[in-house]
Amino acid sequence: MVKIIGLDPGISKTGWAIISLEEKNNIKFLGGGTISTDGKLGTGERLYIIFEQLKKVIFLYSPNEAAVEKIFVNKNPKSSLTLGYARAIAILILRMTDLPMNEYDANYIKKSITGNGHADKDQIIFMVKQIVKSSNIKCHHTADALATAICHAYTRSSCFIE
Amino acid sequence: MVKIIGLDPGISKTGWAIISLEEKNNIKFLGGGTISTDGKLGTGERLYIIFEQLKKVIFLYSPNEAAVEKIFVNKNPKSSLTLGYARAIAILILRMTDLPMNEYDANYIKKSITGNGHADKDQIIFMVKQIVKSSNIKCHHTADALATAICHAYTRSSCFIE
Repeated sequence: MVKIIGLDPGISKTGWAIISLEEKNNIKFLGGGTISTDGKLGTGERLYIIFEQLKKVIFLYSPNEAAVEKIFVNKNPKSSLTLGYARAIAILILRMTDLPMNEYDANYIKKSITGNGHADKDQIIFMVKQIVKSSNIKCHHTADALATAICHAYTRSSCFIE
Repeated sequence: MVKIIGLDPGISKTGWAIISLEEKNNIKFLGGGTISTDGKLGTGERLYIIFEQLKKVIFLYSPNEAAVEKIFVNKNPKSSLTLGYARAIAILILRMTDLPMNEYDANYIKKSITGNGHADKDQIIFMVKQIVKSSNIKCHHTADALATAICHAYTRSSCFIE
């Protein structure tokens, strides 16, 4: 059985989701959540919280593969910098835990989940709930992480068929 | 005695330098170097090398304080992103080792070392060698890290006098 972690890293909110690929490529939702860090905290403290929480998640679920959304390079260089901070922590921890990282374009993820590369956040959350048959996904960041994990599951499975 | 680590983080080259503040605010150079990562490696591998090497340096020298140059936000958002990656690793490791991080503007560092806020890299390397009485500094990244550490030493000492 393959367990996949999907990540949506951000310094304020880092979404994570774990799925397993069952027989006949059925997808089972094992857990997910959003790591929030207070903007009043220093950058070091915020990155450390993300690092420690992601470490716990990986330790708890022992995924075998990882999927992360390809970064959207913001027009604002300062935003890109901060976006890079949280993403670096995710990349580091995946390397530290020997988890191969697969990256997917945001549009590709949206298309593989909803059929529409320009789907909005509500469509994403609606569709991931349908796919994993769970109503227990409230936060968009968790939904985005889950969509990334599902997208990887679909992609790797179709590779096997080819 | 206070030991200061100065850092100049970058994904290709991360400079580091350790100084101690001796009696009468004399500065002693304890060690320095540049961590290089091969551009052919994946980002995860490169960040992991920086993380592990910096951890070793901090373990070896046990500094009490840290200084990092304030980031120059590149006009190119993609460069800012990559710059953010290496910087995030430095910020994380300083937090993990409970090292208070002090940030200084590049111009402030240059001015405090050479008297000129627009000094070039050769002037920096020339002056840091004079200050610490060592000819054993070859790389600009090491020199920049050392300049950052010295700048912090000057700033904290003058604060004490005030």
